[in-house]
Amino acid sequence: MIRAKVYVTLKRGVLDPQGETVRGALETLGFAGVQDVRIGKFMVITFNAVSREDAAKRVEEMCKKLLANPVIEDYRFELEEG
Amino acid sequence: MIRAKVYVTLKRGVLDPQGETVRGALETLGFAGVQDVRIGKFMVITFNAVSREDAAKRVEEMCKKLLANPVIEDYRFELEEG
Repeated sequence: MIRAKVYVTLKRGVLDPQGETVRGALETLGFAGVQDVRIGKFMVITFNAVSREDAAKRVEEMCKKLLANPVIEDYRFELEEG
Repeated sequence: MIRAKVYVTLKRGVLDPQGETVRGALETLGFAGVQDVRIGKFMVITFNAVSREDAAKRVEEMCKKLLANPVIEDYRFELEEG
C-alpha cells in the first residue's frame, strides 16, 4: 500500500482571490503584518502499486489528468510506503 | 519575514465527499486500486514577526481562529525564515 501526499499550488503570478480574502480576514481579526496568503490543495491518496517507480508514474499521471490544472497550478508529491 | 506553511486536514473519521468524488473520478479514468482519497488545504502565509516564537504563537492563533475548524479539522504548520 502506498500513500501519496500531493501538494497543488497556484503558479507564481496567478491571482489568488481566496488567499486575498483570507489575508483580509486575518487583518480584520487583528493580525498585523500579514503580507501574503496563498491557498492550495493537499491530498492524501492511498493505493496499491507494484513498486515505488510504478507508484510515482501513476501519481504523476493522476496529477496531470485530474488533480492539478497544469495551466495555472504546480504540483509536487511525496510517497510513503506501508 | 516569515513564511508559514499550514496544512489543514479533516480529522480521521470525518466523511470527505470531495475526496470520495475524486476517488471515483480516478477510477473512471482507469486508475485501478485507489483505496482512499482525502483532501485538505495547504496555505502559505508570509508575514512579519519579531521572533520564531512570536511567529509560531501567531500562526497557532490564526489556525484556531480562522484557518481551521477545530471540530472537524486538524492542522499543523512549518515555519521558514527569509
